[in-house]
Amino acid sequence: MRLSRYFLPVLKETPAEAQIVSHRLMLRAGMIKQSSAGIYSWLPLGYRVLRRIEQIVHEEQQRAGHIPMLMPTLQSADLWRESGRYDAFGPEMLRITDRHDREMLYGPTNEELITDIVRANVGSYKQLPLTLYHIQWKFRDEVRPRFGVMRGREFLMKDGYNFDLTREDALHAYNRHLVSYLRTYERMGLQAIPMRADSGAMGGDDTHEFLVLAETGESEVFYDAEVTELSFGDREIDYDDVAECAGVMEEFTSRYARTDETHDAALFEKVPEERRRTARGIEVGQIFYFGTKYSDALGATVQGPDGKPTALHMGSHGIGVSRLLGAIIEASHDDKGIIWPEGVTPFRVGIVNLKQGDSATDSACDGIYAQCVAEGLDPLYDDTKERAGGKFATMDLIGLPWRITVGPRGLAAGKVELTSRRSGESVEMAPEEAIAKLREIYASHP
Amino acid sequence: MRLSRYFLPVLKETPAEAQIVSHRLMLRAGMIKQSSAGIYSWLPLGYRVLRRIEQIVHEEQQRAGHIPMLMPTLQSADLWRESGRYDAFGPEMLRITDRHDREMLYGPTNEELITDIVRANVGSYKQLPLTLYHIQWKFRDEVRPRFGVMRGREFLMKDGYNFDLTREDALHAYNRHLVSYLRTYERMGLQAIPMRADSGAMGGDDTHEFLVLAETGESEVFYDAEVTELSFGDREIDYDDVAECAGVMEEFTSRYARTDETHDAALFEKVPEERRRTARGIEVGQIFYFGTKYSDALGATVQGPDGKPTALHMGSHGIGVSRLLGAIIEASHDDKGIIWPEGVTPFRVGIVNLKQGDSATDSACDGIYAQCVAEGLDPLYDDTKERAGGKFATMDLIGLPWRITVGPRGLAAGKVELTSRRSGESVEMAPEEAIAKLREIYASHP
Repeated sequence: MRLSRYFLPVLKETPAEAQIVSHRLMLRAGMIKQSSAGIYSWLPLGYRVLRRIEQIVHEEQQRAGHIPMLMPTLQSADLWRESGRYDAFGPEMLRITDRHDREMLYGPTNEELITDIVRANVGSYKQLPLTLYHIQWKFRDEVRPRFGVMRGREFLMKDGYNFDLTREDALHAYNRHLVSYLRTYERMGLQAIPMRADSGAMGGDDTHEFLVLAETGESEVFYDAEVTELSFGDREIDYDDVAECAGVMEEFTSRYARTDETHDAALFEKVPEERRRTARGIEVGQIFYFGTKYSDALGATVQGPDGKPTALHMGSHGIGVSRLLGAIIEASHDDKGIIWPEGVTPFRVGIVNLKQGDSATDSACDGIYAQCVAEGLDPLYDDTKERAGGKFATMDLIGLPWRITVGPRGLAAGKVELTSRRSGESVEMAPEEAIAKLREIYASHP
Repeated sequence: MRLSRYFLPVLKETPAEAQIVSHRLMLRAGMIKQSSAGIYSWLPLGYRVLRRIEQIVHEEQQRAGHIPMLMPTLQSADLWRESGRYDAFGPEMLRITDRHDREMLYGPTNEELITDIVRANVGSYKQLPLTLYHIQWKFRDEVRPRFGVMRGREFLMKDGYNFDLTREDALHAYNRHLVSYLRTYERMGLQAIPMRADSGAMGGDDTHEFLVLAETGESEVFYDAEVTELSFGDREIDYDDVAECAGVMEEFTSRYARTDETHDAALFEKVPEERRRTARGIEVGQIFYFGTKYSDALGATVQGPDGKPTALHMGSHGIGVSRLLGAIIEASHDDKGIIWPEGVTPFRVGIVNLKQGDSATDSACDGIYAQCVAEGLDPLYDDTKERAGGKFATMDLIGLPWRITVGPRGLAAGKVELTSRRSGESVEMAPEEAIAKLREIYASHP
């Protein structure tokens, strides 16, 4: 993309309404614009990151064997009356009346709707196991929406639902989701720690939240420092292998790690003192096993191997797709702006032309740009008349992890500069070397 | 995808509530399930086609230089009061009151919101031309939603907005959209004819609707038969070339082609009688030029080259993404089911194992399946215990354009069967020949 043809309305001043750094930076970098309280438009740069995150979630869900579909945003109130949650959900549920005075709502989650689909279409245990998921906009009418996309009202969420014949099968689905979530967050450059949590409005016993440590987190968390040393890495896993998935669950959840909701001071005391940590965390996902709560309420049964109707064992599993942008920025920024992890960056490399209008420099930039496009390096080329300082400031603000700087002096020696946004280090090299280096870096970020 | 691990709830019986063939077939093929009047869940097969269509729209919009972003589904009523459309829109607009009694609405379109974004961020003519678009769910509270996704209430639409300094620039944007739409529909295997139409609630003078001819179309259309002989094909076009885009506009719109809204019997009489046609059409898109209507109402001006504030010239351009599934099926089906064009098919090839459980046949199918996956041929492998007749009926119903049939008799001679869904023709060949043939077919459907 050539910046001269893009729409990147960066702001010079820091917006007064933003209390936390991710909100400030998303506004300043021209990623979002508030349209009403807690509701945002995703400007082109923000939309790019949102799509990258969505893409990673899709890939990891499908790798785990989960099936994508899409449920609508508006739901009928009737189903929620069947489950008993219509009144229970309270004023956070946005209730709507249509022109025929039918009661509807903007879905805050989808247990009822997906259970309705499954009860209508799945009659036999032979059709199990089944995990369906979607990525769709949800609405929660927060009293005080704040922190930008971190606690918005209209938000994008991946929610998945497993349907199994037995508790054991459903617990395997639970473990499988935990594994797929670990992979998902790591691909986004995040460490998200699974912590024992409270099930709240969802119901059920087993639940883990995934938390990213950050000063601005809404939850207080307590953990054994050893959990921060774990990483899933690029190990291969067979998602059908019950023992293998259970092993990962054990590895990542056996140490003490809890949110304030479930914190147990006595248990925490047993962690050796030098490893006890208290911090704040941002919730970026949650997995639940809730047994037959919804299938009982909604009559979702299948014929079991014994020919008798059996209630489905279910769980649900969510990733806060839009809030992840905020969480990633909270975890990865500096005074100059955002620092995108390679996995989610809106553009893979920025190209800065130090002397726009100079034909040799322009032509070198055009060549590098074309080469980057051809290699899928998805460049953002600042081909504007802005002076060098302004171009650097914009690139630093929007946080592309790599920058190629092209100027007449370097070109005279056949060199450009490749700069890492994270370390700030610049190295002079031939253009083709810079591209080769980027190719190598991004090989592990498909 | 292995069918045994997929969720494809095909129906044997024809659903009574469906009046038109596309609605019947989408229900029978397990593509959608109604959740409330005019609101549908997209089951996995339907979701796949929806995503394919979205992808083609994205690619063609970006090829034309238009910039993707995303606006929210819910909007504040205030902006619509500024433009004067809040009351004008009538009962089709779904009006919502939030917990703080603020008036909101589920966006039926986005002229107001995009103009608000542009007026806040674009101050100079140097930032033009600019075309922003998004693909987002919309809502129109139809009195009698019907025909499945063809006239639903919650529907997915691509809407794009151009902002230009002058009428001439805006008309170039209009022509550019026409060209990109022609390419878009052709990639989906559709002939969509641009017809002069009425601008309705959008306002403005210039507007063309794109119509797919089909008996079940909601509009009566009148045209010169010559328009059906036009095709854009794979010609290269420079979207920045004003004359080239205007030439395509001229080529595709100079002959008589109008909807009943703008039909002019006297003009139609001038078409030679043997070329006069009356038919029905399904609207799948529309482009508008409406000048400064919204920029005047909302105060969207830029500083012109003369230093004076100048109102932006605008147009908007829509493609009915979710309704396209219905339109494509109306245009492409037979008694047995859907016939997907290669460009939008949910899976590129079906593999039918005639003797599941026979180790040689299973192993041959596994090999073909793995090879298809490796080559991006995105196969659906029916590995269930269903008998052959049932497997064929399902494949015909869901409409994959190509099928590979694998049975012990053929395998003994080193052959499988490759069958075209459209022609019904089957040819015996070696498995590697069948895959080579598919590779060739899909080379022109990236």
